Amino acid sequence: MTELTMTAAWSPTDNTKPNALLEKYRQVRNSSESLCEPLEIEDYGIQTMPDVSPPKWHLAHTSWFFETFILGPYLKNYTDFNPAFARLFNSYYEQVGEFHPRPQRGFLSRPTVREVMAYRRHVDTGMSELLDNGLHPDYDTIHKLTIIGINHEQQHQELLLTDLKHIFSMNLLKPVYRELPLKKQPAAQLHFLQQAGGLIETGHRGDSFAYDNESPRHRSFQEPYRLASRVITNGEYLAFMEEGGYGRPELWLSEGWSAIKRGVFDSPLYWQRDGEQWLEFTLGGMRELDLDAPVCHVNYFEASAYAQWAGKRLPTEAEWESVAARQFIKGNLRDAGYLQPMASSEENGYSQIYGDVWEWTQSAYSPYPGFRTPAGALGEYNGKFMCGQYVLRGGSCVTPADHIRASYRNFFYPADQWQFSGIRLAEDAA
Amino acid sequence: MTELTMTAAWSPTDNTKPNALLEKYRQVRNSSESLCEPLEIEDYGIQTMPDVSPPKWHLAHTSWFFETFILGPYLKNYTDFNPAFARLFNSYYEQVGEFHPRPQRGFLSRPTVREVMAYRRHVDTGMSELLDNGLHPDYDTIHKLTIIGINHEQQHQELLLTDLKHIFSMNLLKPVYRELPLKKQPAAQLHFLQQAGGLIETGHRGDSFAYDNESPRHRSFQEPYRLASRVITNGEYLAFMEEGGYGRPELWLSEGWSAIKRGVFDSPLYWQRDGEQWLEFTLGGMRELDLDAPVCHVNYFEASAYAQWAGKRLPTEAEWESVAARQFIKGNLRDAGYLQPMASSEENGYSQIYGDVWEWTQSAYSPYPGFRTPAGALGEYNGKFMCGQYVLRGGSCVTPADHIRASYRNFFYPADQWQFSGIRLAEDAA
Amino acid sequence: MTELTMTAAWSPTDNTKPNALLEKYRQVRNSSESLCEPLEIEDYGIQTMPDVSPPKWHLAHTSWFFETFILGPYLKNYTDFNPAFARLFNSYYEQVGEFHPRPQRGFLSRPTVREVMAYRRHVDTGMSELLDNGLHPDYDTIHKLTIIGINHEQQHQELLLTDLKHIFSMNLLKPVYRELPLKKQPAAQLHFLQQAGGLIETGHRGDSFAYDNESPRHRSFQEPYRLASRVITNGEYLAFMEEGGYGRPELWLSEGWSAIKRGVFDSPLYWQRDGEQWLEFTLGGMRELDLDAPVCHVNYFEASAYAQWAGKRLPTEAEWESVAARQFIKGNLRDAGYLQPMASSEENGYSQIYGDVWEWTQSAYSPYPGFRTPAGALGEYNGKFMCGQYVLRGGSCVTPADHIRASYRNFFYPADQWQFSGIRLAEDAA
Amino acid sequence: MTELTMTAAWSPTDNTKPNALLEKYRQVRNSSESLCEPLEIEDYGIQTMPDVSPPKWHLAHTSWFFETFILGPYLKNYTDFNPAFARLFNSYYEQVGEFHPRPQRGFLSRPTVREVMAYRRHVDTGMSELLDNGLHPDYDTIHKLTIIGINHEQQHQELLLTDLKHIFSMNLLKPVYRELPLKKQPAAQLHFLQQAGGLIETGHRGDSFAYDNESPRHRSFQEPYRLASRVITNGEYLAFMEEGGYGRPELWLSEGWSAIKRGVFDSPLYWQRDGEQWLEFTLGGMRELDLDAPVCHVNYFEASAYAQWAGKRLPTEAEWESVAARQFIKGNLRDAGYLQPMASSEENGYSQIYGDVWEWTQSAYSPYPGFRTPAGALGEYNGKFMCGQYVLRGGSCVTPADHIRASYRNFFYPADQWQFSGIRLAEDAA
Repeated sequence: MTELTMTAAWSPTDNTKPNALLEKYRQVRNSSESLCEPLEIEDYGIQTMPDVSPPKWHLAHTSWFFETFILGPYLKNYTDFNPAFARLFNSYYEQVGEFHPRPQRGFLSRPTVREVMAYRRHVDTGMSELLDNGLHPDYDTIHKLTIIGINHEQQHQELLLTDLKHIFSMNLLKPVYRELPLKKQPAAQLHFLQQAGGLIETGHRGDSFAYDNESPRHRSFQEPYRLASRVITNGEYLAFMEEGGYGRPELWLSEGWSAIKRGVFDSPLYWQRDGEQWLEFTLGGMRELDLDAPVCHVNYFEASAYAQWAGKRLPTEAEWESVAARQFIKGNLRDAGYLQPMASSEENGYSQIYGDVWEWTQSAYSPYPGFRTPAGALGEYNGKFMCGQYVLRGGSCVTPADHIRASYRNFFYPADQWQFSGIRLAEDAA
Repeated sequence: MTELTMTAAWSPTDNTKPNALLEKYRQVRNSSESLCEPLEIEDYGIQTMPDVSPPKWHLAHTSWFFETFILGPYLKNYTDFNPAFARLFNSYYEQVGEFHPRPQRGFLSRPTVREVMAYRRHVDTGMSELLDNGLHPDYDTIHKLTIIGINHEQQHQELLLTDLKHIFSMNLLKPVYRELPLKKQPAAQLHFLQQAGGLIETGHRGDSFAYDNESPRHRSFQEPYRLASRVITNGEYLAFMEEGGYGRPELWLSEGWSAIKRGVFDSPLYWQRDGEQWLEFTLGGMRELDLDAPVCHVNYFEASAYAQWAGKRLPTEAEWESVAARQFIKGNLRDAGYLQPMASSEENGYSQIYGDVWEWTQSAYSPYPGFRTPAGALGEYNGKFMCGQYVLRGGSCVTPADHIRASYRNFFYPADQWQFSGIRLAEDAA
Repeated sequence: MTELTMTAAWSPTDNTKPNALLEKYRQVRNSSESLCEPLEIEDYGIQTMPDVSPPKWHLAHTSWFFETFILGPYLKNYTDFNPAFARLFNSYYEQVGEFHPRPQRGFLSRPTVREVMAYRRHVDTGMSELLDNGLHPDYDTIHKLTIIGINHEQQHQELLLTDLKHIFSMNLLKPVYRELPLKKQPAAQLHFLQQAGGLIETGHRGDSFAYDNESPRHRSFQEPYRLASRVITNGEYLAFMEEGGYGRPELWLSEGWSAIKRGVFDSPLYWQRDGEQWLEFTLGGMRELDLDAPVCHVNYFEASAYAQWAGKRLPTEAEWESVAARQFIKGNLRDAGYLQPMASSEENGYSQIYGDVWEWTQSAYSPYPGFRTPAGALGEYNGKFMCGQYVLRGGSCVTPADHIRASYRNFFYPADQWQFSGIRLAEDAA
Repeated sequence: MTELTMTAAWSPTDNTKPNALLEKYRQVRNSSESLCEPLEIEDYGIQTMPDVSPPKWHLAHTSWFFETFILGPYLKNYTDFNPAFARLFNSYYEQVGEFHPRPQRGFLSRPTVREVMAYRRHVDTGMSELLDNGLHPDYDTIHKLTIIGINHEQQHQELLLTDLKHIFSMNLLKPVYRELPLKKQPAAQLHFLQQAGGLIETGHRGDSFAYDNESPRHRSFQEPYRLASRVITNGEYLAFMEEGGYGRPELWLSEGWSAIKRGVFDSPLYWQRDGEQWLEFTLGGMRELDLDAPVCHVNYFEASAYAQWAGKRLPTEAEWESVAARQFIKGNLRDAGYLQPMASSEENGYSQIYGDVWEWTQSAYSPYPGFRTPAGALGEYNGKFMCGQYVLRGGSCVTPADHIRASYRNFFYPADQWQFSGIRLAEDAA
């Protein structure tokens, strides 16, 4: 992860260097494999719930993406590494063909890790040929698709770590991904900073890369509001628990309360009671809960109930973006899988906007006004998921730094806990 | 239903007649029972899926509402009809106590219909005593709660018919609730009328009754748009089906497509193929599908896929309300359970705004800006359901006429078909 | 039930009186309806789990049986009461046609009780015409089928009460079917009586009626054994519970232990703790547990675990029948739904052989040597269920007295508790 | 597998050589690892359904067995390799402690294969120390337990191959375990050989090793019967399918028919239609179906329906054993994972008694008369599973040759197809 976090934000339109794109491609592809260095061969194939994909699957699927959308259509005489991979490593693109059932991704001992790495080399060779010197007649399209593929791979780098944490957590042996430093720092004071609202703009601006769901940029009207200066800490969340938060139906959305009554969750994921204290499973193994670190792995129901208990609310995504758009993204904000308060990243009074935890907003994941699903299989990337999910903003400690931006819309189901998701509060201005 | 549909809109704040509220109370209570006149005793206890409640349960639950929130707290010496009813007929108010599991409402042969009617009389006697002449020291509160109770009962009148249709549909004998007239009329031409948008207001205005979720009235910004002059007909929907609509994944939200692949639905609910033609089950029994009548019993996935296929979109609730607020609600628009095009109700170029089918909007059911869940058990009425559902507008042919208004927000899950729900399209202005 | 229990055992082959069969037919049909006298109309339609059928369904299905297997084929010009009933009231006869799904028997408000009673009259009229004076050319076949139909209806009389108990038990109001006398008597001393074993015969003998699964009569070899003089009492079972019986895995079959861990059961069905004492729901309502009465509503896992705990075992069906064949069946042994020790029925040292509780045997329900499934739809009566179930013997307090015999093989799944099932122990002779 | 199949039957009571047991121990332990030689590291961790365990789990669990029941109690100063393994690799012994949930055995990337092999070495070192020279004061007990452990490991060798076949079959890439010879031979003529029956003996005899469930040896009475000379072939089973066997409810047990209607199975497992012909997945990959080879991977429902269709029945286990006890077990009968008719093994007119397919009997898996579950955790080995399963006899092509014997009782649920299970018919003598 270190390599990535040192990387300054990358401008995909910088064409002054002819092979800038190819270089970026290689760098991102290498990063995926670097992330896997601490793994044993056995770790690559495990799936512990339908949401989780095995590391090996992430490595192969990202390659399939380049093969299917770029190499197949544009590289003359390209030969598929293995025709069966079209089915095995298609995630959900209905228009591309049938796909292996998601809950069975952990059934695939073959291809082996070695074969998957060979698949990656095969795809890399093709991509190098295609990107080299930019002379291909369809280079503009290829360029655009490659940038999507690179961003897609970055998303899967994050998912790979998120899923790995779940995989390791289900094992009694509690394996350690990597020793993580313990940088306990006191949390900053929490305060609420006023924003004027009015007719504000939301959505991607400029010609750098963004996903389709971040467009079109559009206006919306907001009443004045206040956004919290930092995210909620473990200690603050623990106070909610100790005051019986999980036993008070009036704080919860009906669906969340029903899940609590069925015993589905009763604390953030990966928390574990140990006598008087609480432990937390991290990519660095089991640790004592750091009360000053951001609360993480809470679902939307928990975020919403916490806000209700605190007499506040969650922000809308427009409110959040309006503030974030004025924040600078520093390098090296993140430390894969372990969280500490980021006092240093403070700006305009706000801290932890980027790269600590994904912050639940109260906004259901919907198309922006004027959004139309693009035609073709890549149109399935985002639009078809705009139902039943909520938007999260800001990126987490496992998001590649150059994959974070103010307009980025992440989305998950309200019951999902396995993401690195936390809470920033808001309130109406008086 | 005839009685209800003749009723002019009722102003709950009209206090010129001292017993206006009591009269209204009696009228609505009687209507619930009138709706049940065509039923056999055996029909009152059936539950055909967890969403459906038996007619008897609706009759008792609405009485429980008055007993729990008004008679118990405010009528001196009031005695519960049967203390066990507190549990049997609580729908979902966690703060009031435990409740009988929803999927087991069809397990209750007792209380009998006769006993439920006696329960209603017992509650009515109490309410009459309480409301008479308005002399109770807490009359203002009682007045407000009674109006909520009346509106609550009207909601259940609609649900009673909706549920009864489902109950009858699951029976091979296809019972008839009531002979319904067959008023086939050609559908009007479909056109899209331009709206200017801008900073528009949404939400309840004035001091007439409205639910908490219709407030606060607030501003939002809308780009110019066009809203369809009428709802989509069966014939138009059939064209979508005949062009393979249910077999084209690119038209569907992911969750809807997944349900289709599992065989959950493949046409509007209650449609049944009969050789070359289509039949439809109605409260008047099985009928030939009326191609000019509004398509009904489609879920959100179907509404959204139809819009996608038609190259349009669903309206937001703000867009819809902005138009509807300028429409007049005529009496007698509805004919319980059977739908025909309402050419006569046209105004400003729009028809069928009220009282034909609930119209799916693209708006996820969320709190309005500034909304706070009220304290106390009645705060559970709406707020806790603001997750995973979509807003529907306009009322249907089984909604009591004086229960329909421009700001009314109905909400259901995207997979729900059993409501009288249809489709009105919108599009961005060029 | 009183009428039935007074009836002496009936010989279906007694042809001295020409209309003996018709008389028996009428008597049994009347009994079914007499059993329903205490019911409200609302009670007739309820189904509380897939195993349970609504009372109305029992009344109609038994009529369907006569209509389908006798009236249709043999009564000239017979007209079906309603052709849709062929599907609604077929229980499981695949060769007769499609059938309404079992878990949806509670969805049928129609036909009404009145219509079902009219259906019964329609069938009775047909049967009277057919049976009268025995002059029909196929009278022998009709006679045989009628006797099956009568026995079938008697089975359903028992099921009707069994199911009704479950239906009432799921209602918080705990309705009373009929006030039952409380005849507390001390349980007799429990002792084990020696049987010689050897080459013994099992199965139906003679020309009286028996089901196909009771044949062929055949020999098997048994080592000497001892059978308990009476069934286990509530008090004895309570001792097992108080010694932690439900917490000791070594006593349980794996499947039973797994169900306990999932919380499926933790006492006999219908037992309910009330502070220090135990209550039991009966057809006479909630009562204090009678420690001297037979334990009832235990499943096979519980019977087997109790035997393990007691250092004994359950008998095989051959062992049981060998003893029972020498017992006399007295009239009036039973009192529908309430159990007391039957000290008076003692004979050869054994008591409670018949008519208290169905006694679990350790014998899996299998075909007797030489058994062949009869051809035709009636061949589905028993043979196809010979998988995964266990045999119970002896009849219970809700079995019609003239439907009990030594060779009768009842069978249920090992997890079933809702039958009136209890425990008689056995052990190997020293 | 070759090594094993060459091995002559082993007499565990041969004490003339002091280290005979230790030698046997080493030989069986080595065999388990030899079976894994063709595997990739990635193959060791996969679980494709709850019944299937990953190969790694089999390797570790068999070691856990020796550690838990022998090394822990008897080897002075023995240190557990890893205390967490007590929980991870306990299969189902409730009396030993908690265990990792069976459906989550595929969640364990750690311990790695290398660590599991080190675990095996650790256990082997302990066992060598314990068994060497037989001088331990508890040697008799250790000897007995070691023989159980060796047999237990042999069972898991079979399961390892059975499970691996399922694992590979679920992968679109259809991996090959090992190239298997294609020895097509015409099936022998099928005839039915008469047996006299009478008072016959069943169960283990002598002092060689057998499981507790094979005792006590006991008498039972059998009428004369005829047993088929060989098992049913693929070709014969195909004829049943082509005559609509899967569409005729009268041939099926109710539970089997219900599964067919739900689409659970419609042919033997691993069969796959390919245009006009049938293919079969084997441990040697996909192959054309060999019509002369024994039908394999049929469940009890299919075996029973086939017998019904053929006008025959399945044998009881007593009938089968009475014949098998007179057959000689030849070496090298089996060829792991591929089946061909064994004309050469004919004796007394019977062929294929041992080592081709496990043969379903009609006998429910029940305790033999006089069987008592042994005390202690090893008492859980067999007794607690005596519910809902059927007995299979004879061993299959993946059973170690010296693990097959006439009295061996294998048992599976009637719906299970993933075992190497086939059909031998029987009929009553005229």
